[in-house]
Amino acid sequence: MNSPITGEILIGQRAVDNGQRTLKAVNPATGETLAPDFAQAGPAEVEQACALAWAAFDAYRETSLEDRARFLEAIGEQIMQAGQPLIDRAVAETALPPARIEGERARTVGQLRLFAQVVRAGEFLDVRVDPAMPDRQPLPRPDLRLRNIALGPVAVFGASNFPLAFSVAGGDTASALAAGCPVVVKGHPAHPGTGELVGRAIQAAARECGMPEGVFSLLLGGIETGAALVRDERVKAVGFTGSRGGGLALVDIASKRREPIPVFAEMSSINPVFLFPAALAARAADLGKAFVGSLTMGAGQFCTNPGIVVALESPDLDRFLKAADEALSAHVPSAMLTPGIHGAYEKGVQALEKAEGVQVCARGGAGEGPNRGRAALFSTSIGNFLAQDALQHEVFGASSMVVRCKSIDDMRQVAERIEGQLTVTLHLEEADYELARSLVPVLERKAGRILANGWPTGVEVAHAMVHGGPFPATSDSRFTSVGTLAIRRFLRPVSYQALPAQLLPESLRPENLARIPRLEDGKRLLP
Amino acid sequence: MNSPITGEILIGQRAVDNGQRTLKAVNPATGETLAPDFAQAGPAEVEQACALAWAAFDAYRETSLEDRARFLEAIGEQIMQAGQPLIDRAVAETALPPARIEGERARTVGQLRLFAQVVRAGEFLDVRVDPAMPDRQPLPRPDLRLRNIALGPVAVFGASNFPLAFSVAGGDTASALAAGCPVVVKGHPAHPGTGELVGRAIQAAARECGMPEGVFSLLLGGIETGAALVRDERVKAVGFTGSRGGGLALVDIASKRREPIPVFAEMSSINPVFLFPAALAARAADLGKAFVGSLTMGAGQFCTNPGIVVALESPDLDRFLKAADEALSAHVPSAMLTPGIHGAYEKGVQALEKAEGVQVCARGGAGEGPNRGRAALFSTSIGNFLAQDALQHEVFGASSMVVRCKSIDDMRQVAERIEGQLTVTLHLEEADYELARSLVPVLERKAGRILANGWPTGVEVAHAMVHGGPFPATSDSRFTSVGTLAIRRFLRPVSYQALPAQLLPESLRPENLARIPRLEDGKRLLP
Repeated sequence: MNSPITGEILIGQRAVDNGQRTLKAVNPATGETLAPDFAQAGPAEVEQACALAWAAFDAYRETSLEDRARFLEAIGEQIMQAGQPLIDRAVAETALPPARIEGERARTVGQLRLFAQVVRAGEFLDVRVDPAMPDRQPLPRPDLRLRNIALGPVAVFGASNFPLAFSVAGGDTASALAAGCPVVVKGHPAHPGTGELVGRAIQAAARECGMPEGVFSLLLGGIETGAALVRDERVKAVGFTGSRGGGLALVDIASKRREPIPVFAEMSSINPVFLFPAALAARAADLGKAFVGSLTMGAGQFCTNPGIVVALESPDLDRFLKAADEALSAHVPSAMLTPGIHGAYEKGVQALEKAEGVQVCARGGAGEGPNRGRAALFSTSIGNFLAQDALQHEVFGASSMVVRCKSIDDMRQVAERIEGQLTVTLHLEEADYELARSLVPVLERKAGRILANGWPTGVEVAHAMVHGGPFPATSDSRFTSVGTLAIRRFLRPVSYQALPAQLLPESLRPENLARIPRLEDGKRLLP
Repeated sequence: MNSPITGEILIGQRAVDNGQRTLKAVNPATGETLAPDFAQAGPAEVEQACALAWAAFDAYRETSLEDRARFLEAIGEQIMQAGQPLIDRAVAETALPPARIEGERARTVGQLRLFAQVVRAGEFLDVRVDPAMPDRQPLPRPDLRLRNIALGPVAVFGASNFPLAFSVAGGDTASALAAGCPVVVKGHPAHPGTGELVGRAIQAAARECGMPEGVFSLLLGGIETGAALVRDERVKAVGFTGSRGGGLALVDIASKRREPIPVFAEMSSINPVFLFPAALAARAADLGKAFVGSLTMGAGQFCTNPGIVVALESPDLDRFLKAADEALSAHVPSAMLTPGIHGAYEKGVQALEKAEGVQVCARGGAGEGPNRGRAALFSTSIGNFLAQDALQHEVFGASSMVVRCKSIDDMRQVAERIEGQLTVTLHLEEADYELARSLVPVLERKAGRILANGWPTGVEVAHAMVHGGPFPATSDSRFTSVGTLAIRRFLRPVSYQALPAQLLPESLRPENLARIPRLEDGKRLLP
């Protein structure tokens, strides 16, 4: 079952070579080009993928919950069957270590299985029944039944930094397929071979499960390919993980369509870490060391990388910084994902080095080979931080800024001043709770996830997870891209009034054979 | 408790006269001006209202569910206490009959009570708990808890056509307050006195219940007042019911803010009615008469007014048209809501009269007095309908177009061609089910509500209602503006990871004293 990588475009069940072999995979750790060359999708391939997705939509969205759950599980099985060649290729294309890629594969497969559970449970349909009241005065009430249906074909933009978990069969794809939406992926050009192997796994699963052909396609390409996909009127929603500029460009295209569509763009976050006094007093050195672990994990290429640290100026903070300095100095960087990402990182770090009132606290080692970014820890005063919006801009990679506060009120000012975030972290002891309590309401307004005594990197795939947050962390704070709630992005409610039972979808029929949970006349009934 | 109407702007608990008494209330049935003159809110009043709303937000969103529910009920009680003067004023300002206004008051108060129930039930918080798994391999799982929190202050734009139910204390206000969002209403200038009376009822309820002052303000004004409100960075969402142009203008303003915000605009729908052959054969004359009842109700000024009728050409259709003609000819129109709305109606009808391939089937009586719009029923061929997008544009008022089809496939083509709708109606008998079954999947993609053997006017406030639909019916098909699901527009999820119980909001604490329903480790637990 080890498919070779051919560099073709995957459209439905076909593998297409349009002759435009213009994309090359590169090993960022060595700069070597990896075979083969990859075909870039043009307007013809976008058209074919969207036409197939549209043709599949009505059938796919009405597949039984069991069939759809089985399809998600089959994708996971096919990914596992891709075996070691998938791991090797992902390592070669990303310079991420094999253990990380294996963990990411487990996460990706686990995520597909979790969405299979969600589909089987049926609660995502949000079935509601308000029975008729023929004798109600002054007017009778008609029978009303509601369910969620799939929005339509979804365009998914794979992320560079998670070649499996946020890419071809990642969270956006899994949740869209779970919702009943066909998916057209615009694969990230940083890992095209990994993408193709995963795409072929989805093709095989669709074939095995007898799904309509257009349920999945994978297009490789650049900005124009992605733009054409978002402009296509058959695409009804977009999932994206990447830069603020990239996300906003897609939002702009989507809003200018004849029929505007929602874009779920997860974009930019600096994930503030607040160190409270008693926590710093109790474990400054441990915190400094653990902080560097989170900062440098995966070469700092996490959406939830801790980009600012907020603390009171004190000898304890100095101890934290000393421990961080020691850990950082000993850190040997691995290659970043692409030369472009590495270049942007160096530019961002250089800008901070030159920024007014910013001091370099520590730098990591230089490492050997191309695309290594030296980790960087800066510090600045509260006044300087508040005076310069630019100090809040995300530098993607292992760069962070300590904001030195003089009072808890300063810390609150930072909290009020920061833009929307994916996460906010608190390090605290019981003696800090009173101070923290006054900050939590501010932080709730700013972030999708508030965590205590841990590090923001590492996003659990769970029911109670939010990987989202106010702008610019995402383009729509009401949704999450990780966890089971992610399915809600791709659904909309439809109400059926007095429809004869023979015309109702099965999930709404009185007999409820599939035992789907219901809200009946406002009361929650369990099956 | 009968407050006089003063024409002042209501900001928090104050009534403000800024000296800009530039707005006049007019009785559309007579053209008379009604005292007093009303003050138009300028930038200073927008600033004050938003500052107060923002100051109220953190406290209001954390009011106990019981206190918040009680506040909603108190608003209803205060509206009832406004008594006959409120009914009289609404009749004078809208030319809608007293019975309709009384019914609308009952709906408005019932809606507030229903949202009080929703608040008490607590399910809208979507509480989820994934307990820690300290021994999980390869990594422990942290404790994760999720709840929804309010988005922030909401700007509500009152609609012209429902002076109570979609206005100052209407569905948008009720659902936003229920979610925990302070509300700043931009009152509709077509019924400023009605608005003030209702606004004063909300003020009194807020006072009685000890709510933070900024929980509610009412600004009267024009386009600039509304635009300033949507631009204000403290406003975090917008509810709007009105024209497509008005809704899209707000969407545009909201998307260009430094922090873009969601706009829930309910805009434009022509609510197609499909008459199936057996239904027409069985009851053509009754359908014709009932159709005219729905078409002319409230001078046709419903978002769900049936603007097109799709049927097979046949002697039965002729019988339907004959009955409709008879009913329409006997119809005496009441005044429309404003001279502007009446003027737009006349212009729309004239354009249809002149449109190529469009025949006048029937016209209503002319009536006496200003602002009367003669009802109008047109017909056209399927070919002509498909050739002219303009025939799909909403004419707000009692105007409708019959599309004459030659086959069921023609009816399906109409279904595929129409834009997004609030409703689609089917009239059918058992013999029609087979034909209808092939149409339902298309209609699900097009509308928020599909109803059988009834009329789209009349929107039940219920758990299973969707008053929404794909663009341009609304700006966001994933939400409804009527029914208990409307609360979801104004909420976003926040995840709390490993937060000490002392810092958790009460709804997430392990002891769950308020007995709020939970999804625990993916399993639904009832309290």
